[in-house]
Amino acid sequence: MVRVRVEVHLRKGVTDPEGDNVQKALTLLGFKGIGGVHSAKLFLIDLATKDTKVARKEAEEMCRRLLANPVIHEYSIAVEK
Amino acid sequence: MVRVRVEVHLRKGVTDPEGDNVQKALTLLGFKGIGGVHSAKLFLIDLATKDTKVARKEAEEMCRRLLANPVIHEYSIAVEK
Repeated sequence: MVRVRVEVHLRKGVTDPEGDNVQKALTLLGFKGIGGVHSAKLFLIDLATKDTKVARKEAEEMCRRLLANPVIHEYSIAVEK
Repeated sequence: MVRVRVEVHLRKGVTDPEGDNVQKALTLLGFKGIGGVHSAKLFLIDLATKDTKVARKEAEEMCRRLLANPVIHEYSIAVEK
């Protein structure tokens, strides 16, 4: 069993309303010196395979087919043992 | 400038409909051997301070006051330079 970490970020230049609103809210709460907030999705996927290369390839395909929209998202994959 | 990574996960035992639906969709797409999918939120926060201890403390307070709901969430904080 291998656990894959998939991070799906918004591409640079794509508006991030959640990040912007978190920043506004934190500022309203009194936090100072916040240069920016970027929000992203994280998926932890358990795969039956033990081969990390196979797991990475499979996660890659999951991103392409379901988890990420290439127009606005970029993703990174890390395989944990 | 320090960048803080805040991961907000659902606590064990809390239903994760997004994770469950991603798992279902991946199975429908033909992916096999998926043991489970867990979804989480990730926030990357840029802080003006250079002190990593101060940054961690501040992020900790942000989680308590805004980013996480202690009833259903647990969070982890990592400070990047």
